[in-house]
Amino acid sequence: MPAADRFSGVFAPVITPFHEDLSPDPERLIAHCRWLLSQDVGLAVFGTNSEANSLSVPERIELLDRLVEGGIDPLKMMPGTGCSALSDSVTLTRHAVRNGCGGVLMLPPFYYKGVSDEGLFRSFAEIIERVGSADLRIYLYHIPPVSQVGISVGLVERLTRAYPDIVAGIKDSSGDWNNTLALIERGGADFRVFSGSESFLLRNLGAGGAGCISATANVNPAAIRRLYESWRTPGARELQREVSELRDCLQMPLMIPALKAVVATFLDDPEWETVRPPLTPLGRDQKDLLLKKLAEQNFAMPALGTASPSRPSA
Amino acid sequence: MPAADRFSGVFAPVITPFHEDLSPDPERLIAHCRWLLSQDVGLAVFGTNSEANSLSVPERIELLDRLVEGGIDPLKMMPGTGCSALSDSVTLTRHAVRNGCGGVLMLPPFYYKGVSDEGLFRSFAEIIERVGSADLRIYLYHIPPVSQVGISVGLVERLTRAYPDIVAGIKDSSGDWNNTLALIERGGADFRVFSGSESFLLRNLGAGGAGCISATANVNPAAIRRLYESWRTPGARELQREVSELRDCLQMPLMIPALKAVVATFLDDPEWETVRPPLTPLGRDQKDLLLKKLAEQNFAMPALGTASPSRPSA
Repeated sequence: MPAADRFSGVFAPVITPFHEDLSPDPERLIAHCRWLLSQDVGLAVFGTNSEANSLSVPERIELLDRLVEGGIDPLKMMPGTGCSALSDSVTLTRHAVRNGCGGVLMLPPFYYKGVSDEGLFRSFAEIIERVGSADLRIYLYHIPPVSQVGISVGLVERLTRAYPDIVAGIKDSSGDWNNTLALIERGGADFRVFSGSESFLLRNLGAGGAGCISATANVNPAAIRRLYESWRTPGARELQREVSELRDCLQMPLMIPALKAVVATFLDDPEWETVRPPLTPLGRDQKDLLLKKLAEQNFAMPALGTASPSRPSA
Repeated sequence: MPAADRFSGVFAPVITPFHEDLSPDPERLIAHCRWLLSQDVGLAVFGTNSEANSLSVPERIELLDRLVEGGIDPLKMMPGTGCSALSDSVTLTRHAVRNGCGGVLMLPPFYYKGVSDEGLFRSFAEIIERVGSADLRIYLYHIPPVSQVGISVGLVERLTRAYPDIVAGIKDSSGDWNNTLALIERGGADFRVFSGSESFLLRNLGAGGAGCISATANVNPAAIRRLYESWRTPGARELQREVSELRDCLQMPLMIPALKAVVATFLDDPEWETVRPPLTPLGRDQKDLLLKKLAEQNFAMPALGTASPSRPSA
């Protein structure tokens, strides 16, 4: 795969619907993925905001199989495959490659804290060697506020030197723009740097970055995508202000219940609010306040659901 | 199981041996467990210091099956079964109960940070309800320096009220003696509070605690057990000083490579030094320094290996 085939653009870490019994719901997931693709947004399934770390390996494998069987283009998918256990990361990464996924988003092993860059290098190297496929494209996942184990710029340099065709980019969810800038400057010409929030999208693209992978793309994909496409135009600053303002409405310490509440409301489908413990759904007051703030922004989710044959538009 | 059958004493979070190809080594694990039992120390297999979070669910299931088949008494075992994913915790806990384990040591789900006590309660409750066995005994595992998600005293009170026969105790690896004391005072008469380090053992027992579950019990079980048995005697303070001093020699930000280096040295079995990434083995200098410090303490591992039929004593 030439570097031109590496990912760029806007990706949603796709929220994962659950049935009331907390089992994953492939049908609703397929419908949501279809809608996101219709909004020109790529699919970072099994990310942090997908509650992927509350899913077992067999559950993730089953869901990815169902997505591909359901007609979701694997080349538009960047499933999360980095686990705490080396063997799990190998299993999931191999499975993603076999399914023809355009890339994978890989957390470092995140249970043991205070590990060295040498240990993290060995972890990624073991996964790459064990999967052993020239088709593998890894997007590293740097999210220290959650994983508590980060991926330093120095580690990125070492990995891209050792595996220049495999280690294709990074998602930087540090919230630290200087770190993103250092990754863009030192990652190499073909290294794709995604911001973890659309709040940085204009700056990211201006500095030579590749786009963003952002939780809010689950509910506001069209506007974020519009900013991505028109970032060189005079109206870009205004678009950036708008998407950032909308993000501020949704911002909470844990954004997942809010995103699910929004989708449930706009689809009139309460089951979408279900989250797996340790998460809890929004309380009634929190939800009312959120919807009020969104209404003040004239927020809508145009055509939500229409991209799914099983979910005709109202 | 009456409260009298709840665990007390000294437990080792048993270090997990790997082959050079990083696959788990059930034979060496069985031998080490046999030796620990011969020292009157219980088996908290699959704890933090077991690198359990670097093992997949199938790897843990296979190892536990091999231990039981190898004649290791499941009633002496407290396997770690708490995972990031709810479904994994259910699978492992159910498997431990089916194998007749005397209890399980359960981490809270540790990927998502800033979760509420309500969310953690729901997580433990789901596991308990889904496993659905009166034989289940849960020892909660509070280790905020590593998991970053803790188990508050309030959550303990709520869990013991809801499941008084199931939620049997806690391992407190906070390093905060006041927290341990609060757990002993507020957990209830039958609630077993283990310190996460033998440095607190005398204080733990004096305050009504149940013992300790400590990494160093992998290499220094006899002395720690001696302190446990004689804590009311005049010599207890001196024994406490000795085990604490030995622990200080082994103390490192990540103790696992040190423990493995010690076992490898005393068994003259270099393969024992293998760790899974993201951990790295001790460097030569670190190892030399460690062994020098241990020699100054006249440290020995008496009869190490002799409890295993496959490992005759020298």
